[in-house]
Amino acid sequence: MHTLVFATNNHHKAREVEQILGGNFQVKTLRDIGCLEEIEETEPTLEGNALLKARYVKEKYGYDCFSEDTGLEVEALGGAPGVNTARYAGEDKDPDANIALLLKKLEGKTTRRARFRTVIALIFNGKETLLEGVCEGRIATGKRGAGGWGYDPVFIPEGHEQTFAELGESVKNAISHRAKATERLVGVLSCKADE
Amino acid sequence: MHTLVFATNNHHKAREVEQILGGNFQVKTLRDIGCLEEIEETEPTLEGNALLKARYVKEKYGYDCFSEDTGLEVEALGGAPGVNTARYAGEDKDPDANIALLLKKLEGKTTRRARFRTVIALIFNGKETLLEGVCEGRIATGKRGAGGWGYDPVFIPEGHEQTFAELGESVKNAISHRAKATERLVGVLSCKADE
Repeated sequence: MHTLVFATNNHHKAREVEQILGGNFQVKTLRDIGCLEEIEETEPTLEGNALLKARYVKEKYGYDCFSEDTGLEVEALGGAPGVNTARYAGEDKDPDANIALLLKKLEGKTTRRARFRTVIALIFNGKETLLEGVCEGRIATGKRGAGGWGYDPVFIPEGHEQTFAELGESVKNAISHRAKATERLVGVLSCKADE
Repeated sequence: MHTLVFATNNHHKAREVEQILGGNFQVKTLRDIGCLEEIEETEPTLEGNALLKARYVKEKYGYDCFSEDTGLEVEALGGAPGVNTARYAGEDKDPDANIALLLKKLEGKTTRRARFRTVIALIFNGKETLLEGVCEGRIATGKRGAGGWGYDPVFIPEGHEQTFAELGESVKNAISHRAKATERLVGVLSCKADE
């Protein structure tokens, strides 16, 4: 049994990954290892922030670790908001402000193509691995649906006509960028646990 | 660049996996390597059949290879049709006969829980790896939806109210057992290509 830290405070997310890993790994959260301080995400890329968090845990606490960072990348905006997804309209603004700014910037643009991209950085047995999962889609012209979080009311995944917020949590969880990245992580770990 | 055989005759499936692998692997089909004979699936498990096909290609043609086998496992039927999914009603019967038999066997059962399970067997650098992807769901009480293949008109994936046939190809492809197994394969290969 390997112990692996998921650099998150979301206990539920850690249990979920532990379950998918099928008994070969114990997955701990930051709180579980006594890391209560906030790890500042200061890098200019998703990859950089994911690595920064994983390295912090490895260096300061000594555990093998993985960490994720997710961004919304809009084609007509050159990949923005990207690494600034959570703070697009400013540090103290709420999701509504982020969505309003995004819709305003897309006015008159000929393409509304966008993708959610999750990057996972894994540090295991002294080696760093970067993985990603992508969900292609487009930005709706206005907010639709009550469910969801962040940009969910304006993101329509490819192959669907409804937004993530309308589709609901379980559909979103099944098709999302995060799900793909997590399945890839499972593959990498099953390979590494084997070495 | 590694060359890898996908033990299938479906050129489209091979291109799709090659694309997901992102340029590190060239994926060939059975036809591409001149394997025109049928590989008989004689094992009693999905794992056995997937391994059998991959070993056949490795031994006879010398290529690293992966192979998949998929089955529908119905809880109230002790996991049947499982390895016999494609020939549940008999070797020469069509999907309608399989579905009719399944619905008949489920009459009066208290649970209709079922799952699709894809097993991938990979032979790479002299080592065998088994991977799986599961899509949980239930069997509908009758056929619904015109699209799809095999049992798609009677399989309702978890979190949805529609059958795979009603949901359509792109939704099915995104949430399916096969998609999960493929993402795990990508993870394993990215790890092995790195060794």
